[in-house]
Amino acid sequence: MALPKRSEDYSSWYNDLVKQADLAENSPIRGCMVIKPYGYTIWEKMQAELDKRFKETGHTNAYFPLFIPKSFLSKEAQHVEGFAKECAVVTHYRLKNAEDGSGVVVDPSAKLEEELIVRPTSETVIWSTYKNWIQSYRDLPLLVNQWANVVRWEMRTRLFLRTTEFLWQEGHTAHATKQEAIEETEQMLNVYAEFAQNILAIPVVKGVKTANERFAGAEETYCIEAMMQDGKALQAGTSHFLGQNFAKAFDVKFAKKEGGLEFVWGTSWGVSTRLMGALIMAHSDDQGLVLPPKLAPIQVVIVPIFKKEEELAAISELAAEWVKELRAKGISVKYDNSDKYTPGYKFAEYELKGIPVRVAIGPRDLQNGTAEIARRDTREKFTVDSSLLTEKIPSLLDEIQQNIYQKALDFQKQNTHEVNAYEEFKKVMNNGGFALAHWDGTPETEEKIKQETKATIRCIPLDAANEEGKCIYSGKPSNRRVLFAVAY
Amino acid sequence: MALPKRSEDYSSWYNDLVKQADLAENSPIRGCMVIKPYGYTIWEKMQAELDKRFKETGHTNAYFPLFIPKSFLSKEAQHVEGFAKECAVVTHYRLKNAEDGSGVVVDPSAKLEEELIVRPTSETVIWSTYKNWIQSYRDLPLLVNQWANVVRWEMRTRLFLRTTEFLWQEGHTAHATKQEAIEETEQMLNVYAEFAQNILAIPVVKGVKTANERFAGAEETYCIEAMMQDGKALQAGTSHFLGQNFAKAFDVKFAKKEGGLEFVWGTSWGVSTRLMGALIMAHSDDQGLVLPPKLAPIQVVIVPIFKKEEELAAISELAAEWVKELRAKGISVKYDNSDKYTPGYKFAEYELKGIPVRVAIGPRDLQNGTAEIARRDTREKFTVDSSLLTEKIPSLLDEIQQNIYQKALDFQKQNTHEVNAYEEFKKVMNNGGFALAHWDGTPETEEKIKQETKATIRCIPLDAANEEGKCIYSGKPSNRRVLFAVAY
Repeated sequence: MALPKRSEDYSSWYNDLVKQADLAENSPIRGCMVIKPYGYTIWEKMQAELDKRFKETGHTNAYFPLFIPKSFLSKEAQHVEGFAKECAVVTHYRLKNAEDGSGVVVDPSAKLEEELIVRPTSETVIWSTYKNWIQSYRDLPLLVNQWANVVRWEMRTRLFLRTTEFLWQEGHTAHATKQEAIEETEQMLNVYAEFAQNILAIPVVKGVKTANERFAGAEETYCIEAMMQDGKALQAGTSHFLGQNFAKAFDVKFAKKEGGLEFVWGTSWGVSTRLMGALIMAHSDDQGLVLPPKLAPIQVVIVPIFKKEEELAAISELAAEWVKELRAKGISVKYDNSDKYTPGYKFAEYELKGIPVRVAIGPRDLQNGTAEIARRDTREKFTVDSSLLTEKIPSLLDEIQQNIYQKALDFQKQNTHEVNAYEEFKKVMNNGGFALAHWDGTPETEEKIKQETKATIRCIPLDAANEEGKCIYSGKPSNRRVLFAVAY
Repeated sequence: MALPKRSEDYSSWYNDLVKQADLAENSPIRGCMVIKPYGYTIWEKMQAELDKRFKETGHTNAYFPLFIPKSFLSKEAQHVEGFAKECAVVTHYRLKNAEDGSGVVVDPSAKLEEELIVRPTSETVIWSTYKNWIQSYRDLPLLVNQWANVVRWEMRTRLFLRTTEFLWQEGHTAHATKQEAIEETEQMLNVYAEFAQNILAIPVVKGVKTANERFAGAEETYCIEAMMQDGKALQAGTSHFLGQNFAKAFDVKFAKKEGGLEFVWGTSWGVSTRLMGALIMAHSDDQGLVLPPKLAPIQVVIVPIFKKEEELAAISELAAEWVKELRAKGISVKYDNSDKYTPGYKFAEYELKGIPVRVAIGPRDLQNGTAEIARRDTREKFTVDSSLLTEKIPSLLDEIQQNIYQKALDFQKQNTHEVNAYEEFKKVMNNGGFALAHWDGTPETEEKIKQETKATIRCIPLDAANEEGKCIYSGKPSNRRVLFAVAY
């Protein structure tokens, strides 16, 4: 079934693509998705790349409980406001057979004394544990990450972008000094940005959130913001400087080297399966997924075109050699000699799935010593000398990775505007895109702009230059531009 | 703090070891553990080895929801009996501020229409999804695995062995024929057994469970059973042939190649963080953990012994060379030149943590061109020519891996007895060990033996020979021996 065109119905295009490309689907449980094998394989590749970077920067993984006692949430005043409201609450620990034989019912005698919350994020349970792990400066820094599922009860959900349950990683670190904690926060933001650029092939704007958009319990929230093809922003990762807020809430102090006790400084940082949504929306086209080679479960597919068995045999012999050589170079390759589907059907299917390079070879190619290569990103086709095929593919994959990034970067630049008047601002927000504009620094103005245009301040870019100007809304003075967009 | 001796208090030895070696600890949430970084790193290594084997046998990973609608559990009659009883039940989706300002309380207006169960296992939600994925024989076999957390509300918990929340993998496959599903069940049992032997270094008995011990909803449960150092059995993995039970419960049919519709045949199979308990209890000693090199987060530690800074400098230079050479061979190595602790303290710490090989080098070694190697498994020490050190270590690690396995195998053999009389049986069960004995095949006898001795039939070994005999309890005829033990 053909996908809707992006230009006609971006939202349906996205939903249909996620389903048709076998990435994910809705489950019978409201707001929870099933991540299908093809989608999960892409997520595993993201995980491996991120995990490598976390370990290279000195972090180790651990695992903390799924459940959080209700009282823990209340210990940090901001945090409970942000997270206690929409969450899954476990109240009982047993079912029993219904007396009328109709199935099972909750056993009222198995009511928990204190309700448990399915973790929406783990700061509270982790800092309650850190209290036992940290006594002295010798125990610091503590650099821990967790790969886990979390639950936030969302009213309106969309596959990958906003789901009640999602998968993520959450880093939680503890430090002896404020400076060191801020450096950690910034380091992890840079890890995310580098990963976005080099692996997801998505350019991002690094910045800090305004107070309105800050993580509940953080002193400062850093973020990376990516532009989707409809010009909307997607927050692709956050890194929080927690100050001493959670250390104070859970009484985590350490003996300083120079004597005396001090509260520990904290950070937390995370990315989630939302990145799958970013990946899909940043690059894909009306024919289907476009995957950067570094995340493609299959990088190269070889499709034989044949009528007679002996033609297939000759092609298969050559293809087997290619498969061997490409795998030796660390390239994942599939030879699809199935006779269930026609080559045309296969071509469409592999386009839909975003396989970066397709090689087609038929009897005439065999005679001529050639093969046809099709690039998924540009949809160009060209003929190569078959003896050079395996030599050319690694650099072609690099070129595709680079091209996908460049295309997204060009798009981002073309659709980011310096805006100096509110009318102009509204036009940009309406058409889709990022606006760099002056803002008077008040939450009130931020809120009014949001109500009138749906745009929010995505971040105060880290690289924003000092520049005197006037707030586009209130006309009050401002000394640098902030980034506005309508966001997912 | 010294560990209790295994011979004096095996149970405290285990609990203390898990905590002191930084593997896991209890959390503030009843029955839920925190898996600490060192313990989690070992689990990650297990995961990587298992995941590789699953992929080599054609499986891919996916992810299904954490929550299961209450009604799903009731769809398979046996399954609901086994799993609905002790589980975490989500009844509400929102908290609100308490009117008295004391924190947050459950919002009674946010009651779910149907309660959600935190998955104790995922057959029901997965088969409800498979209904959409399977229409024809072309969609089969479907070979999917999931790495996930599950929750079973346990009354008595022990770190790793029995916890309310635990981590595991659950494979769920669907097949066109009974024969193929049985072959899959057996294949995965063999994958588990090979992993236990070659990676965990634990010999296992492969067998099938009696009806009493079968998975709720399975036609046949295969298992691997391992012997711990106290002679008790630990079920280390199970693989279930589900017949068409879940296909029937969720109406999953496929169009056969030869025409007509048939219910799909299923399997499921899993291992969990329980394997951490098996690993610890199978090999460790009164000094601490003993880790097979293939699972050790650090395989080799180098400890310098020095008084003067120039001695340390000379040792560090040599050690840097060793570290480089060992890493090039794929060996994980740590050079511990910290001056926070004495060499003696470090030795004890690395023994406790189970590092397979410790290298010590002091000024006299430097002069003599030697180094001292200590094996964790045998606690032997010997001097080597320092120029040959990095050459010898890979084969030493192999030897240690093999020796740990052999030791466990010898122990298992010495403590497995063919028993022909009930008095003798009771003695064996009392002393600890496995008994191979005749059983009349009835659940009643099995249950009585359990009540009188705490021993259960761990399995009917796959390699049990046909042998005429009489049940040790009832005296009734039997045609093969089954494996009894007191189990964890």
